[in-house]
Amino acid sequence: MNTPQGVSPATFATALKAFAQVVGTDWVFSSAEDLGSYRDAYSPLRGLPDERTASAAVAPASAEEVQAVVRIANQHGIPLYPISTGKNLGYGGSAPARSGDVVLDLKRMNRIIEVNDSNHYCIVEPGVSYFDLYAYIQKKGLKVWIDCPDPGWGSLIGNALDHGVGHTASRYRNHFDAHCGMEVVLANGEAVRTGMGALPKAQTWGQFKMGFGPVLDGLFSQSNFGIVTKMGFWLMPEPEAVMTGWVMAPRYEDLHGVVETLKYVENSGLASGAPEMSSPLLGTGTSMEMVKMFFDGPPKLAARHGELVAGAKLGFSPELQRYGLDQQIPYWQLHMTFYGPPKVIEAQWDAVQSLATKAIKDVRFQAGKIHAGPEMKQAADRFEIYPQNIGMPNLEFFGMGTRAGGNPHPMSGHMWFSPVIPQTAEAIFEVNRVFDEAVRTIPALQRVPVLGLRPFALPTVFIERSFMAILGFPVSDDPKMNQALVQAFRELIRVGAEHGWGEYRTPTIFQDQAASVYSYSNHSLLRLQEAIKDAVDPKGILSPGRYGIWPKQLRKRRAA
Amino acid sequence: MNTPQGVSPATFATALKAFAQVVGTDWVFSSAEDLGSYRDAYSPLRGLPDERTASAAVAPASAEEVQAVVRIANQHGIPLYPISTGKNLGYGGSAPARSGDVVLDLKRMNRIIEVNDSNHYCIVEPGVSYFDLYAYIQKKGLKVWIDCPDPGWGSLIGNALDHGVGHTASRYRNHFDAHCGMEVVLANGEAVRTGMGALPKAQTWGQFKMGFGPVLDGLFSQSNFGIVTKMGFWLMPEPEAVMTGWVMAPRYEDLHGVVETLKYVENSGLASGAPEMSSPLLGTGTSMEMVKMFFDGPPKLAARHGELVAGAKLGFSPELQRYGLDQQIPYWQLHMTFYGPPKVIEAQWDAVQSLATKAIKDVRFQAGKIHAGPEMKQAADRFEIYPQNIGMPNLEFFGMGTRAGGNPHPMSGHMWFSPVIPQTAEAIFEVNRVFDEAVRTIPALQRVPVLGLRPFALPTVFIERSFMAILGFPVSDDPKMNQALVQAFRELIRVGAEHGWGEYRTPTIFQDQAASVYSYSNHSLLRLQEAIKDAVDPKGILSPGRYGIWPKQLRKRRAA
Repeated sequence: MNTPQGVSPATFATALKAFAQVVGTDWVFSSAEDLGSYRDAYSPLRGLPDERTASAAVAPASAEEVQAVVRIANQHGIPLYPISTGKNLGYGGSAPARSGDVVLDLKRMNRIIEVNDSNHYCIVEPGVSYFDLYAYIQKKGLKVWIDCPDPGWGSLIGNALDHGVGHTASRYRNHFDAHCGMEVVLANGEAVRTGMGALPKAQTWGQFKMGFGPVLDGLFSQSNFGIVTKMGFWLMPEPEAVMTGWVMAPRYEDLHGVVETLKYVENSGLASGAPEMSSPLLGTGTSMEMVKMFFDGPPKLAARHGELVAGAKLGFSPELQRYGLDQQIPYWQLHMTFYGPPKVIEAQWDAVQSLATKAIKDVRFQAGKIHAGPEMKQAADRFEIYPQNIGMPNLEFFGMGTRAGGNPHPMSGHMWFSPVIPQTAEAIFEVNRVFDEAVRTIPALQRVPVLGLRPFALPTVFIERSFMAILGFPVSDDPKMNQALVQAFRELIRVGAEHGWGEYRTPTIFQDQAASVYSYSNHSLLRLQEAIKDAVDPKGILSPGRYGIWPKQLRKRRAA
Repeated sequence: MNTPQGVSPATFATALKAFAQVVGTDWVFSSAEDLGSYRDAYSPLRGLPDERTASAAVAPASAEEVQAVVRIANQHGIPLYPISTGKNLGYGGSAPARSGDVVLDLKRMNRIIEVNDSNHYCIVEPGVSYFDLYAYIQKKGLKVWIDCPDPGWGSLIGNALDHGVGHTASRYRNHFDAHCGMEVVLANGEAVRTGMGALPKAQTWGQFKMGFGPVLDGLFSQSNFGIVTKMGFWLMPEPEAVMTGWVMAPRYEDLHGVVETLKYVENSGLASGAPEMSSPLLGTGTSMEMVKMFFDGPPKLAARHGELVAGAKLGFSPELQRYGLDQQIPYWQLHMTFYGPPKVIEAQWDAVQSLATKAIKDVRFQAGKIHAGPEMKQAADRFEIYPQNIGMPNLEFFGMGTRAGGNPHPMSGHMWFSPVIPQTAEAIFEVNRVFDEAVRTIPALQRVPVLGLRPFALPTVFIERSFMAILGFPVSDDPKMNQALVQAFRELIRVGAEHGWGEYRTPTIFQDQAASVYSYSNHSLLRLQEAIKDAVDPKGILSPGRYGIWPKQLRKRRAA
C-alpha cells in the first residue's frame, strides 16, 4: 500500500478505517485497480516515476461527510486532494497535484439544490455535471440556459473553480465570475457560507453575490484554502431566438479592424455571444468549423493556395493576400452569436455591419438563419449552430481527439498552454512573432509539435475583455516525446512571461512555475497566499502545492 | 492631544514625527481645527461622547509613502483608518470606525494612471473622484462612459470598496464587480498586485480580472485587510444613443408582472440600463422624478386622490385602485434605459412592450425621445434623462437634502438602512407588511421618522438580480432624536435579519450588528475573516472593527 508523503502505514491505515466509518467501506479506495481510475489519463508523465498518483480515494456523499473526513484528515495529518467529477483533463484530471495525496472524490454529491427560472440561477453540489443540469432543466421544461465548456461531462463547480469558460453570452462565459454564493468546508472541518448564504432564512443566496463584509469567494478558486460543497450560478434566460453572423475581412492588416469591431460589439453588449476569429485564407476554423472539418474532412485547398499558405511567413505573404483577394477568400473572419427577439437580432446585426464597414475596407458579411424557439435546438442538432453557443452540453469537440470520436490517429491526451494577452491585433501579431521565433530557435521547442501556431495562432475570446493565445501539446504514448513536451512547455511559460503573457490556468505539473512568474515585488502575491494558507490550513492538509501554494512545512525557501 | 486607544502620548508623538518625515509636516494633522474636517458630518452621534473621531490624520502622496507610513504604524502600534476622498456620507464619512484611530487620507493620490478607450478600462488612484475622471475623459475626447453614484464627488476606489452602485448598464453598476486589478499595501508595508498586475511587463492588468491562482481582490472590499492604492475599472463604450421607456401597470397585483418583466429584460440584456420602479398612484417617483419634484414642487394630487392615498393600507385600497383606473394613473411604473444604435433601441423597446403586454393586463407604455451623440448630454443637462444614466457625475440628487440645494428644511444628514431582499413582488409586499408592522408596534421605531416606508416602499435595482429595500433615516441636530434613530436602526437590522433580509452596507456604528446577523454555522464566516485578519495584520493596525472585523487583541469573545 502506498502512503501519503510523511505518513506512516499505521497512521494511514487508522485514517482509512476512520474514513470508512464516515462514508462506508465501499467508498474508500486503496487497491491499485481502483486507484487506476484516479490517474491522469492525459499526464505527460504517465508511467514515469514523476507521475502524480493517489495513495487512496474517499468519496463522501454530503457536506457533513466532507466535514467528518476533513476532521479525521486533520487529526492524522492526511493530505486530501478534492476533485469534483475529475474531468479537468489537460490540466491534471483526477490525479492529485502531489503524489501520494488522498483524492477526495465529490462526484457522489450530485444534488441539484435549486433551479430558479424566474430569477435565473441554480445552486448545485460538486458532483453535478453540465449534462446532469441540462437534463434536469429539460425534464422540468424550465426556461433557462446553462453555459458549458467544450466537453459537457465535467462539474459546474469544478470547472468554475479552475476558471473554466464557455460559449454563450458574455455575462455567463466566465464561469467563476458568473457564480453567486458558496458553501465551503475549511481545513478545520467548519462549514462557511459566503454571500447571503451566511444569513439564516435568506432567500437571496443565488441572487446577491456580495453579502456583507469582504467577498471571500475568490479565495476558493484555483487554490487549496477550502473544499467547495455547494455553489450558485447565474443562468441565462432562454432567448426567443439565436443567429450567427460572420464579418469577413480581406487583408492581413484588417486584423486591427476585426479586433476593434469585436471589442466595441462585445463591450457594449451589441452582440453578447462568444466571438470567434478564424482565417479561411490560412485554413483555420472556428470551434464549429473544426468539428465539421473533423467529421467531413478538411476543406480541400487548391494546390496553389496550399503552396502559398505553406510559404507564408507569420501567416503572411503578398502573394497569399493577392490570392485571397482574387478568390474572395477572407483573410480573417469574425464569428458572432446574437441572442434575443428576431427584430432585435436583425437591428444588432445591421449595427455590427455599419461598425465593421467603417473599420474594415472591403469588408463582407454573411448571416445564418434566425432560429427561434424549438428550432434553436434542432439547428444545433444539425450543427448549423455550435451546440455550446446555446448551452447544449455534448462531447463532439472533445471527441475529436479520441478513438471514440472516430479518429484513426487519436492523441493519448493534450495539454494547453494558455497565456492571457492584450485584446489588440498588435498583441496577436507579436505573439506569433515571438512564439514562431521560440519554436525556431529554442532547442526544447524544436523537438516537439506545438499545435495551433502554424500557420498563424489566433486567440480565443472566451472571457470578455481579454484574449487567450492557447497552444496545444499532443501527449502521446512515447515517454521520451512526453518528457520533451514537458521541457518545451516550460520554455513557453518562460518566454511568455518575458513578454508579459502569463497563463490563466495550467496543468498541475507546471503550476509552481506558472505561479512564479507572477512575481511583482518579490512574489508578494504568492507570499500573501501563503500567509492565508498557513492561517486557514496550518497543517497543510488540503491539496498541498495546488496552483503553486504550499503549506509552511513543505515550502521551499525562495531566493530573496 | 488625543491619542489612539492604548497608545501613550510619547509613542504617538514619536510616530507623528516619523509620519511627517515621510509625507512632510504639512500633511500630518493633529490640531482640533484640522481634525474637525475628518468628523462625520452625518453621524447621529455627532457631539455625543460616542462620536467616532480621529486623533490625527496623515496624507501620503504615493503608494511608496503609504508603505512607509504603514511600516511606522506597525512599528509603533498606531491604528490607521484609510479613506479615499472621505465622501462615504451616510455610512461613516471620513471618520474612523473606532475613536482615536489615525485617518490615512489618500485624497492626494489622485493620479489617473490610464484611460483606454479602445479596450474600455481605466486605472486610477484612490483620490480620483468621479468628477476628476469625467473631466479627464471629456478633455481628451475619449469615447468611454463612467458609472457614477448619485453624488459625483466621491472616489471610484472608495465607492467600489464599500460596494457602491451606479446608474448605467448592468455590467457596470456594481462598482466592485466591474473592477479589474488592484494594488494593495498590506499591514506589513508590502505592496501586492492582483490579477495580471502581479506579472511584470503584463499589459492586461485592466483587461483580465483573475490572474493565476486564487482571486484575492474581494478580501480588500468592505474590510480591513489592506490599503488599496490603485485599482482598474471597466468602462462602458459610449453608445450611439440613449432612450428611456416607461411600462405603466394599472393594478396593485400587477407588481408581479412588473417584476417578472424587469427580471427577464435585465437578465437577458434586452435593456441594460438601471431599471427603476415607482408608483404614480401613490405619489412616489424615480430618482429623476424626485429631483424634478424637489425643484419644481411635488405633483399636486387632487384632494380625493390625496385622501385615498392617506387611507390606503400597505399602499392599497379598492377605492384607490378604482380611482387610478378611472383617472388612468398607473399603480406602478417601470422605468428603463436603453443604450445603443437607434434601431436596436427601437427593436428592444418593441420587444419589452410585447413581453409586458403578456405579463400585465391593460398595460400602457410611454417612451422618451431617442437622444443620439452630443444630444445625449444636452438632454441630461435639460434633465430629460437622469444624468447618472449616461454616466455624468453631478450633485443634484445629493443636493436635495442640503442647504446648498435650496432646501429650506435641510436634514443635517441621513443614514440608509439597506437590506437585500429577493427579486420578487412577493418579497416587496412582505417587506412592506413586516416593516409597517414593526413601525406600528416596536416602541423604538414609533419614536422616529423612517423615510420611504409610507405610503409604500419600492426597492431599488442598482445591482442586477437582487432588490435593495432601502429606508432612510434623517439625522438632525437634536441629540435625543438622533439617539432614538440609532435605537430604531438597530431594531430594523434585527427585524430584517429575522426575515432573511441582511444589509449590503451600513454606517460604521452598526457594522458589528449588521455583520453578526450573517451567523450561519456559529458565525463561521466572521471567524474565517478574523483568521485572515490575524494572518495579514497580526498587530491589528488597519481599521480595527471595520465591517465587524476586529483583530485578536480587541476581539470580544463571542458566545459559543
